[in-house]
Amino acid sequence: MNRIEHRACFGGWQDVYRHESEALGCAMDLAVYLPPQAERERLPVLYWLSGLTCTEQNFIAKAGAQRYAAEHGVIVVVPDTSPRGEGVADDPAYDLGQGAGFYVNATRAPWAAHYRMYDYVAEELPALVEANFPATAARAISGHSMGGHGALVVALRNPGRYRSVSAFAPIVAPSRVPWGEKAFAAYLGEDRAAWEAYDATALVASARERLPLLVEQGESDEFLATQLRPELLREACARAGHPLELRLRPGYDHSYYFVASFIGEHVAWHARALRA
Amino acid sequence: MNRIEHRACFGGWQDVYRHESEALGCAMDLAVYLPPQAERERLPVLYWLSGLTCTEQNFIAKAGAQRYAAEHGVIVVVPDTSPRGEGVADDPAYDLGQGAGFYVNATRAPWAAHYRMYDYVAEELPALVEANFPATAARAISGHSMGGHGALVVALRNPGRYRSVSAFAPIVAPSRVPWGEKAFAAYLGEDRAAWEAYDATALVASARERLPLLVEQGESDEFLATQLRPELLREACARAGHPLELRLRPGYDHSYYFVASFIGEHVAWHARALRA
Repeated sequence: MNRIEHRACFGGWQDVYRHESEALGCAMDLAVYLPPQAERERLPVLYWLSGLTCTEQNFIAKAGAQRYAAEHGVIVVVPDTSPRGEGVADDPAYDLGQGAGFYVNATRAPWAAHYRMYDYVAEELPALVEANFPATAARAISGHSMGGHGALVVALRNPGRYRSVSAFAPIVAPSRVPWGEKAFAAYLGEDRAAWEAYDATALVASARERLPLLVEQGESDEFLATQLRPELLREACARAGHPLELRLRPGYDHSYYFVASFIGEHVAWHARALRA
Repeated sequence: MNRIEHRACFGGWQDVYRHESEALGCAMDLAVYLPPQAERERLPVLYWLSGLTCTEQNFIAKAGAQRYAAEHGVIVVVPDTSPRGEGVADDPAYDLGQGAGFYVNATRAPWAAHYRMYDYVAEELPALVEANFPATAARAISGHSMGGHGALVVALRNPGRYRSVSAFAPIVAPSRVPWGEKAFAAYLGEDRAAWEAYDATALVASARERLPLLVEQGESDEFLATQLRPELLREACARAGHPLELRLRPGYDHSYYFVASFIGEHVAWHARALRA
């Protein structure tokens, strides 16, 4: 792992590393915030998955999470949103290809060669972090939009692996909204049965662990009715008896101003679970 | 004033307005954060001046100041860093022309036609803000790098106008460092006597008001020794008996991670002066 950025921030360090990912078969940039407590002890880790068009930079520059991570003694790890590079398949649209990995393992050409973001986030990343940083195995996961979908899916599919999960404006039912239908058709093919493994509203029905879901959603979010549809998660959780706290916030949109406004509450909530 | 962005943020609104500036002779974008208290009362205003290459967007997206502004009930106003547009002179370099107004009134061609950022910030902006927003006439001013220079100069030249002034990594002596020498020669001409009106280290010698200067400076700032030189301000203040609190922060660089780490302390400090 090669450190390419190193910036003092709230008494700790906001770093970015470049490493060769086995799961993805390409070089990946990975942001890691080490709070001041990391100089003397191992700390729990909050993983953050970002949304469409983002890299590892957006959240670390805009969300202001470092203040809360320093307050609670939590490492924050932020991967990029897809494999990258000249040898990696891409598409000119913002919602497919690089910057739009959707946290799946692609099975269709040309995507299958590199687009294995599910394995990268669920398997490679925790192993890498716990081997290279002063991290304990206490993990939490969160994300925004496409990354909120990723956080819910990774947590629901891996019982016992995460102490807590939350999401900001997540794509809760990618199988049933345009962003997800387009990406899943490309990455996974037209057989919709294969899509269910990456759809939080399908996964709660069979979840073996009743990990409570915390979902933050702005009511003025421009994608609310078309792409996010939190009511589908509410219905699925009600049917399955899965615990969900859905916080609807009047006035808030889809931007990082929304994430910044509530990330402090989420970090505190994850910190309680991580230290319980 | 035409509102072009409107985003809920920490219970208030992070807005951006476009208006025709008289001082600059062009359309300008202006960011205004209205904390939740602005719905029911008039509030004091903190003006923030940004650095080279910035627009009104950088500070509002990256500094996380809205949280503290909401906590203390302070409006935050963030102008762009130069006149803009096709009819406005420019230079391919990042440190001259658009994005690099240096908060002066230019007197030389081709700059004199539009580059009157001093008048814009010191005169037009407070009048505009106090006429159009629920603002009192209690004003504070701060900024980063080129904007830290601007904040110090505007406050020092206008006794009684600002309750408090602070700066992050300011260019304290533009007459004596490469960034300032280049810009001042272009905007003001080669006669260095004209530069003193825009040089904080010169202005403290004749300041009629002993407004304390609060300066935050990272010790790992990549521009510390070449462009910022805070020791020149320390010497000038010592000679003049002008109060200065210079906070040197080990490890911190010139980035917004540095600004974000200490903006909360500055907002609290300004809020105390604004409400005194």
